[in-house]
Amino acid sequence: MADDRTGEVPNKQIIFKDYVTGFPKEDDMVFTCATSKIKVPEGSKSVLVKNLYLSCDPYMRGRMSKPYSASYTNSYTPGSVIVGYGVGKVVDSAHPNFKAGDLVWGITGWEEYSLASMPEALVKIKYTDVPLSYYTGILGMPGLTAYVGFHEICSPKKGETVYVSAASGAVGQLVGQFAKLMGCYVVGSAGTKEKVDLLKNKFGFDDAFNYKEEQDLAAALKRCFPEGIDIYFENVGGRMLDAVLLNMKVHGRIAVCGLISQYNLTQQEGVHNLFCLVTKRIRMQGFIEPDYKHMYPQFLELVIQYIREKKIVYVEDVAEGLEKAPSALIGLFSGNNVGKQVVLIARD
Amino acid sequence: MADDRTGEVPNKQIIFKDYVTGFPKEDDMVFTCATSKIKVPEGSKSVLVKNLYLSCDPYMRGRMSKPYSASYTNSYTPGSVIVGYGVGKVVDSAHPNFKAGDLVWGITGWEEYSLASMPEALVKIKYTDVPLSYYTGILGMPGLTAYVGFHEICSPKKGETVYVSAASGAVGQLVGQFAKLMGCYVVGSAGTKEKVDLLKNKFGFDDAFNYKEEQDLAAALKRCFPEGIDIYFENVGGRMLDAVLLNMKVHGRIAVCGLISQYNLTQQEGVHNLFCLVTKRIRMQGFIEPDYKHMYPQFLELVIQYIREKKIVYVEDVAEGLEKAPSALIGLFSGNNVGKQVVLIARD
Repeated sequence: MADDRTGEVPNKQIIFKDYVTGFPKEDDMVFTCATSKIKVPEGSKSVLVKNLYLSCDPYMRGRMSKPYSASYTNSYTPGSVIVGYGVGKVVDSAHPNFKAGDLVWGITGWEEYSLASMPEALVKIKYTDVPLSYYTGILGMPGLTAYVGFHEICSPKKGETVYVSAASGAVGQLVGQFAKLMGCYVVGSAGTKEKVDLLKNKFGFDDAFNYKEEQDLAAALKRCFPEGIDIYFENVGGRMLDAVLLNMKVHGRIAVCGLISQYNLTQQEGVHNLFCLVTKRIRMQGFIEPDYKHMYPQFLELVIQYIREKKIVYVEDVAEGLEKAPSALIGLFSGNNVGKQVVLIARD
Repeated sequence: MADDRTGEVPNKQIIFKDYVTGFPKEDDMVFTCATSKIKVPEGSKSVLVKNLYLSCDPYMRGRMSKPYSASYTNSYTPGSVIVGYGVGKVVDSAHPNFKAGDLVWGITGWEEYSLASMPEALVKIKYTDVPLSYYTGILGMPGLTAYVGFHEICSPKKGETVYVSAASGAVGQLVGQFAKLMGCYVVGSAGTKEKVDLLKNKFGFDDAFNYKEEQDLAAALKRCFPEGIDIYFENVGGRMLDAVLLNMKVHGRIAVCGLISQYNLTQQEGVHNLFCLVTKRIRMQGFIEPDYKHMYPQFLELVIQYIREKKIVYVEDVAEGLEKAPSALIGLFSGNNVGKQVVLIARD
């Protein structure tokens, strides 16, 4: 409850301590408690949001590094609150598009209450017959990433063979299901038996393997795809990419969504088999979801229907409490999460 | 002259000795003299060609390696005549499409006389107001490679910035000129001062540099492209590709035509900056010319006109005599050739 005199409330926050080299650690982030006004400043057009769910996403690692020119995201500011996708409820609004009580998703702070000074970047939540946390995943950035990455970048055709790495993650589990819905043969890889079981039994992948148990990744892929791979949805990079290149079919396509195996290395692993791009006439295309925001409405209508019809399922790994957010985020890089990693801050 | 009794002539040949590891050497090929009939076998549909020009092309290195699954060309057979593109004159024909005296280009042997058992793969030469050797280069495979690689793979737009490596070679010099004709800003690199001068003064590149004199390739590219590279026409691979990735613009395109810096390495260099594919949403596409044979007629009409109007020039490095062919081929891999490497066998 707000202090009647000051209009302020305690506001727990996760502060970014300093730029990170190598693997991030929990104490690169500091749990603290500030006080914040829960009224928007007079004369502003801002919106005050109470955060309900926060999203842990691999791209956030990039924002923890010192600024460098080739990054596609801005680095976090040491001493400031961590920023990422989340779901929240509008508490106060000076913006004509939003009013108190509205549910929204978009970029917010890792704290209980956030003041959105550019509310245009928030999306009002249209459908609430699904878990609200879905707007950090299947109905949010990872969902649109999977959708455009597969349908726009991979040029899939019915009957083609599709390989997805990090396949039980926020994006991978959806890519596999989109590919199955299109009539493709889909194989995924993940890092534990539990995840491999999910791929086969929950998400309907045709086959799956635990990459940590394979001595020779190229041989594992050859076993799963004796005729080769038409489409690779790349989430990991490094030696996995090298193994895939050897197993691609002629005119294959690789959508490069992320390279999570490389994010914490100070020296990136070399990829040695790029000659396959020529010999097999492979197209390799990087992409990021913000370039496809205009496709969100059509994506949402399609996928909400899939969810309602149970044609697509979604697995989340929910950490409870803001103080769990740093370890949840860091866990992504050792594969601790089973499914989309979310942090629950408040239920409403 | 043929022996009247046997119908045979002496036929000088270059024989492929055995599979090559690392850099090829002259004595991986053997100069010899056989005798060959200069009549096509009765009952066949073959064509007997007197070879006039032979083409030395980097892809031939791949055919010298032991067969492996990822190659796009068949390996040469040890003990057999080297095979490659060439220009010749039909001496005898049992095929309805060809008659004695016809000039043709296509796949032939490294010898004075070749029996083409699949003459469908030969192209009858339509225009003879240009040097016949051009059909090994600007009007042959390298020409079509440059044309489709630039126009079909790079999606160029007027005003874009284009970088070409191995830019004075058979393909590179044309890519640069096609790009200039389209109104792009074009920079090339090559390995000697003489070649750099050619790029700037003969082919009309906006700028050029000698990559061997640059300590830091990424810095050299930054100097030439302060705003970044829209299109990279990749002929070399390895550390050049790494430097380019750092200097690409958002939504840049890379046509992967060849990776000549890697062809003689037993262990391919690693490419470390592939994260740029994601951050800059780069499309990287391998291609080979045989996939675009159907475009040859339109290509020929366009480029013959460019040549006649002197809108495009072409520089060849002509070695005289079949016995020079092995050293000419090997010279490609140390950059000895200035322009397209051709071997003159006979003038008519």
